[in-house]
Amino acid sequence: MTFAATILTLYPEMFPGPLGVSLAGRALAEGKWACDPVQIRNFATDKHRSVDDTPAGGGAGMVMRADVLARAVDHALERQPNAPILAMSPRGAPLTQQRVRQLADGAGVTILCGRFEGIDERLFEARPIELVSIGDYILSGGEMAALTLLDACIRLLPGVMGAPDSGDDESFETGLLEYPHYTRPAEWEGRTIPEVLRSGDHARISAWRKSMAETDTRLRRPDLWERHEGARVQSPSGARRQKKER
Amino acid sequence: MTFAATILTLYPEMFPGPLGVSLAGRALAEGKWACDPVQIRNFATDKHRSVDDTPAGGGAGMVMRADVLARAVDHALERQPNAPILAMSPRGAPLTQQRVRQLADGAGVTILCGRFEGIDERLFEARPIELVSIGDYILSGGEMAALTLLDACIRLLPGVMGAPDSGDDESFETGLLEYPHYTRPAEWEGRTIPEVLRSGDHARISAWRKSMAETDTRLRRPDLWERHEGARVQSPSGARRQKKER
Repeated sequence: MTFAATILTLYPEMFPGPLGVSLAGRALAEGKWACDPVQIRNFATDKHRSVDDTPAGGGAGMVMRADVLARAVDHALERQPNAPILAMSPRGAPLTQQRVRQLADGAGVTILCGRFEGIDERLFEARPIELVSIGDYILSGGEMAALTLLDACIRLLPGVMGAPDSGDDESFETGLLEYPHYTRPAEWEGRTIPEVLRSGDHARISAWRKSMAETDTRLRRPDLWERHEGARVQSPSGARRQKKER
Repeated sequence: MTFAATILTLYPEMFPGPLGVSLAGRALAEGKWACDPVQIRNFATDKHRSVDDTPAGGGAGMVMRADVLARAVDHALERQPNAPILAMSPRGAPLTQQRVRQLADGAGVTILCGRFEGIDERLFEARPIELVSIGDYILSGGEMAALTLLDACIRLLPGVMGAPDSGDDESFETGLLEYPHYTRPAEWEGRTIPEVLRSGDHARISAWRKSMAETDTRLRRPDLWERHEGARVQSPSGARRQKKER
């Protein structure tokens, strides 16, 4: 099945952009996903095709109009009634690997890309739109966030990644950061690969990697570690996603 | 001054990509920033130009070699000795708007984009590289993260944004999410713009926006709210960035 991505944007020429290259580009050519950018301006009704207006109450910049965007959203809903509608916004819920996995398991996604100061809030009261943030920083618009979200989804689609298991050990899939990696040369600038990794003892290697993942998470991301430990206390057996879950 | 972005990547054709359009594209054409993607493969020394090898200790996928990457990093350091070197990685420190602002205030940035399972950890012991994560999800490589980071920086460069003040009220600049926006039409699908925003009373509007920003942050992002309140308790007067600071 083709994962269908509809992107509502003022800059359709940004898509597929970097997703037309490498892993995602090959998957696009093979029909594993489809990229359909839609120009929001097509849903404007005045002769200037305006999509924005000055903020109510004053202030800098422009705000995107609820009426124009609602028509664009309704158009997407008609074409893909089962795809969730996401709007990329710093006011949204932080994107997680779990949400990425859910989206990748579905039929596709419609993504609304905001520009300027933001979007008239009434749109979010009137339409079933999920606000999603890719991080606590400000972008020039929702387009780069949409590309990032799609990149995360596309690599999880069936047949896209080379090795089917190569996603399972990654950071966040276990609720922890990933363990550190090493490869040849065995010695470089006087630095060697940790002895355990050269031992051939798979049980020791696996224990070392688990311990490194835990240590790095605790030191680098106390917030993640706390959540991980909280989940373990509440449900000792179910804290980690089982490898065979899907 | 031109903000110089050097990107070490296996996919130089991804740059400037979406940053060649709109706000960032205009700024690039005007010389406000420079985009210099460098092919990592040029620093390989064998006839296959290999940049990766199998993981020490076993496991799926490939790991990028420290020796090849170090040569690429040294090349960038030689060209831009004062630019910080960032590597985009889910194991990195979460990107914040504060760090974006620091980077945008500097001369430029060198960004190393990982691919495959990751990068030989010895590189990070041997070179002054800052690991940065744009969020808790996995991408197909560092390229999309680099584009996102650059987008966040470029809009802050002098003369890039239309209105010089339009960045100051945004989410995170005050440690809070931004307040909701409204614009014409005054009534849409039976929904009206909040009365206060049509009052013309600037003090009331400002108080309403502050209160909405606080409420939305508390409800949507308790983690941000806690940090914000913690900072206020520790330093009641210095908790918010002053508008005139820069």
